[in-house]
Amino acid sequence: MSPVVLDRSSGVPLYRQLRASLEQDILAGRLGAESRLPSSRELAASLGISRNTVVTAYQELIAEGYVTPLARSGLAVNAELRQVLPPAENRFDWDARLAPILDADLPISHRPRDWQRYRYPFLSGQPSSDLFPQRAWQRALRAALEGDSFWPSLSDLGDADDPLLVEALCRHILPARGIDADPSQVLVTLGSQQGHALVAGELLGPGRRLAVEVPGYPDLWHIAVRTGASLMAIPVDGGGMVPGPELLSCDAVAVTPSHQYPTNVTLTVGRRRQLLDASPDLVIVEDDYDAEFRYAGSPTPALKALDRRGQVVYLGSFSKFLAPGLRLGFLVADARLVAALRERRRFQVRHAPGQQQRALALLITSGDYARALRRARTILRDRWRRTVAAVETHLGWGPAFGDTFPAGGTALWVVGPPELNSRALAAAARGRGVLIEPSDTYHLGAERQRNAIRLGFASVPTDLIEPGLAALAAAWSVRRDGHGSSRSGRSVLSEPARQGSRHRDGKSRPQVAR
Amino acid sequence: MSPVVLDRSSGVPLYRQLRASLEQDILAGRLGAESRLPSSRELAASLGISRNTVVTAYQELIAEGYVTPLARSGLAVNAELRQVLPPAENRFDWDARLAPILDADLPISHRPRDWQRYRYPFLSGQPSSDLFPQRAWQRALRAALEGDSFWPSLSDLGDADDPLLVEALCRHILPARGIDADPSQVLVTLGSQQGHALVAGELLGPGRRLAVEVPGYPDLWHIAVRTGASLMAIPVDGGGMVPGPELLSCDAVAVTPSHQYPTNVTLTVGRRRQLLDASPDLVIVEDDYDAEFRYAGSPTPALKALDRRGQVVYLGSFSKFLAPGLRLGFLVADARLVAALRERRRFQVRHAPGQQQRALALLITSGDYARALRRARTILRDRWRRTVAAVETHLGWGPAFGDTFPAGGTALWVVGPPELNSRALAAAARGRGVLIEPSDTYHLGAERQRNAIRLGFASVPTDLIEPGLAALAAAWSVRRDGHGSSRSGRSVLSEPARQGSRHRDGKSRPQVAR
Repeated sequence: MSPVVLDRSSGVPLYRQLRASLEQDILAGRLGAESRLPSSRELAASLGISRNTVVTAYQELIAEGYVTPLARSGLAVNAELRQVLPPAENRFDWDARLAPILDADLPISHRPRDWQRYRYPFLSGQPSSDLFPQRAWQRALRAALEGDSFWPSLSDLGDADDPLLVEALCRHILPARGIDADPSQVLVTLGSQQGHALVAGELLGPGRRLAVEVPGYPDLWHIAVRTGASLMAIPVDGGGMVPGPELLSCDAVAVTPSHQYPTNVTLTVGRRRQLLDASPDLVIVEDDYDAEFRYAGSPTPALKALDRRGQVVYLGSFSKFLAPGLRLGFLVADARLVAALRERRRFQVRHAPGQQQRALALLITSGDYARALRRARTILRDRWRRTVAAVETHLGWGPAFGDTFPAGGTALWVVGPPELNSRALAAAARGRGVLIEPSDTYHLGAERQRNAIRLGFASVPTDLIEPGLAALAAAWSVRRDGHGSSRSGRSVLSEPARQGSRHRDGKSRPQVAR
Repeated sequence: MSPVVLDRSSGVPLYRQLRASLEQDILAGRLGAESRLPSSRELAASLGISRNTVVTAYQELIAEGYVTPLARSGLAVNAELRQVLPPAENRFDWDARLAPILDADLPISHRPRDWQRYRYPFLSGQPSSDLFPQRAWQRALRAALEGDSFWPSLSDLGDADDPLLVEALCRHILPARGIDADPSQVLVTLGSQQGHALVAGELLGPGRRLAVEVPGYPDLWHIAVRTGASLMAIPVDGGGMVPGPELLSCDAVAVTPSHQYPTNVTLTVGRRRQLLDASPDLVIVEDDYDAEFRYAGSPTPALKALDRRGQVVYLGSFSKFLAPGLRLGFLVADARLVAALRERRRFQVRHAPGQQQRALALLITSGDYARALRRARTILRDRWRRTVAAVETHLGWGPAFGDTFPAGGTALWVVGPPELNSRALAAAARGRGVLIEPSDTYHLGAERQRNAIRLGFASVPTDLIEPGLAALAAAWSVRRDGHGSSRSGRSVLSEPARQGSRHRDGKSRPQVAR
């Protein structure tokens, strides 16, 4: 038995300290099963504490089964503990137990965790300090715990959602997208990513195939491949996804009609009809990415608005406007599918946090949401214009398709000269406080486009857009002219990368410094 | 072409109204591909609006691809839209597409959504109006958007968690359970249910087997069976789960050592060792259910505290104390497993909402959490005593094992006489404002115990416990004596139920009114 050290100043009752010490001795095998414990009188005397303290500690050890009273008197260590603890053995072999990794070959975006410390974070999908309606959101969160809202905010809702939020979506959010839905067709999600994951879990799996846009959204590819499904890459042009006969071999197609992710083009109305008519068995997953932000003309109605057969699953999100960290989105689909996804969600996370659901409902019904959105749209339109102008001024690069950048969204997809290695440029720009996303992340397979970048403009304050792009241009000019040629032959433009070295048109082009 | 109705008082610009009207005509096939659109001059004159308005609407329709300029002049509907819309066809056949339901035979708990409107809601797992630290939580939520906390609260964290919360768990929460963990071994979840779901997704699947306690937690059974795994029922006695050689045929075992769910007994220390030593390949999932609430003696250390090989996955939750609607919990395991689960979570929900994570971190580090917990423990100890006393006074029923109810948790498991049909009693009690949970919900297979009830006492105000149990006893006495015998032969005690009619000991007992 090891010496018992009691600390009278610790605030922990002495009997608990004693009990903990004895427990450790027992578990470590220092108090063997053969040995009687000292009597409470003896131990109290030797430690200089009251006998009651020892008795209380002993009673707890008895109650927990660590020790057992002996037939006549005294205590002994529980016979069940008699087995000596095994010597330090090998750690449990977790590697042998983990599920196989099915998506190891897919690109994945790892953004710096401290992105907001950079002066020019041209990233999409992050919040903006001046667009988030902070006071209105805090007001809504506070109101969400008051009066009748207390219970729905804090209760276990089982498989349900906050009915007030579902009603707000049906009345205030979906009509603006041309969608007429009733509550049985709506499911609240933790962002459109959970929507994709629930749908993939329910409808995909081994032997199933999902058609996806390329360039496109890599997280969706991971989600699908992790179910065991395969992907069919569908190209994108200035009119959005180019549907073709390959869709007939697919179980579902995922599409971003409002603003194609990442190129920002809008799916033409003709293509919308082609998708809807492609096959009577094709599930269409519509990710209504960045639909809120359109800077010229009216918003295009959602594909779901044209869905007469109930084959479209619509995914909406509050990640872009309001903030991704809130993890709030929703899904609209046939009531039969929604019921299945609701059950699935119940056994994953039950539901999105109640207080946040209620706060969002209050934000929408108070009109604060619409006000903040209008304000954000005005500010983002200005940022879009400045970004377009500064790209022209400082880089002279253009859009992927046609002559003008699509007037919407929260990011530009900018194509540079063929020799641009956007991953190398991103690394160089980072040293100048500029974060951009290289194009290869958005490509599937070995042939990944390298000469484009994605420039998110929502998180960069308006006045920093022009200097930010000047800094990016400086990084580019050093890489192209100075740095690159100074190392002659081992150009930064062709530095080794995990990505393939071919261009999108499939032709291999040598990467040389100019 | 249908008549264009423009509403000048609607606030919607006239060109948008015009565009919407034309768009609908085109999509509905009322403006065929052969027909030219009227010239902007003609249409402006016929509608009494400016020509500019019409031109703007037309330009949008061109940009969106609804109409195309004709070779010489004028506009026609896009040829791609030429195909006539299909007639109202059958709805998409979702039933043929949904995943098979693997868990249809398992019991499931459906609590009334409006449970808080009942006067005596003896349910566990719901919040309490007087235990939730409302002001401290609101303060923490507000602080979570201020200063340095703004970005972690609102950003997309990718696969990460709020580092401040993880640190608070490692420093303030886990040591009290005897667990020494570093951040790489901790994952924040949306409640322990998400912990179970992530672990099951990673480690179970077809051909795998999970050992579970019976009576036990039905949602866990659903989660496991939905992966394709099978269940092995392990009995429970006064010392908790009774581990036996059947564990050797299992890949993992799920156990609730602190307070067995639903009977509330504590796993003895000898059984803890038996579990840890049962097999070198056995994964142990420890759901540390209601560990915070112990009303006599010291808390037992977690099983994870004895885990020298890294085989234990520990699940903690803030659902019981603080509130289930927050959806916050955590998981502690070997860093290798945590990394895999983190990746899995990323592709399901990314992460728990950032502001809530940060608010919980601030609640813990400010000491408000510990203060609220101490207060809750005092109040709940009182409620536990009153519930035990009132059960004795009004029903005279007792615990499942031994003579006294385990002094902890937030609910009592109360066993009635053999003829008790707890589901019928629950229905009768509901009419008197009393909600209880019948025992069959917690049983697997055809032979489900019917003569016990679960009495959650956390959500019932202290002064209402005694009258609540008096009302329950009144419902029982009517069902047993009055109602039952008045219908003679077709007793309420044997009313048809979906559950099996056998008792836990396997002997079939006729259900007769007394």
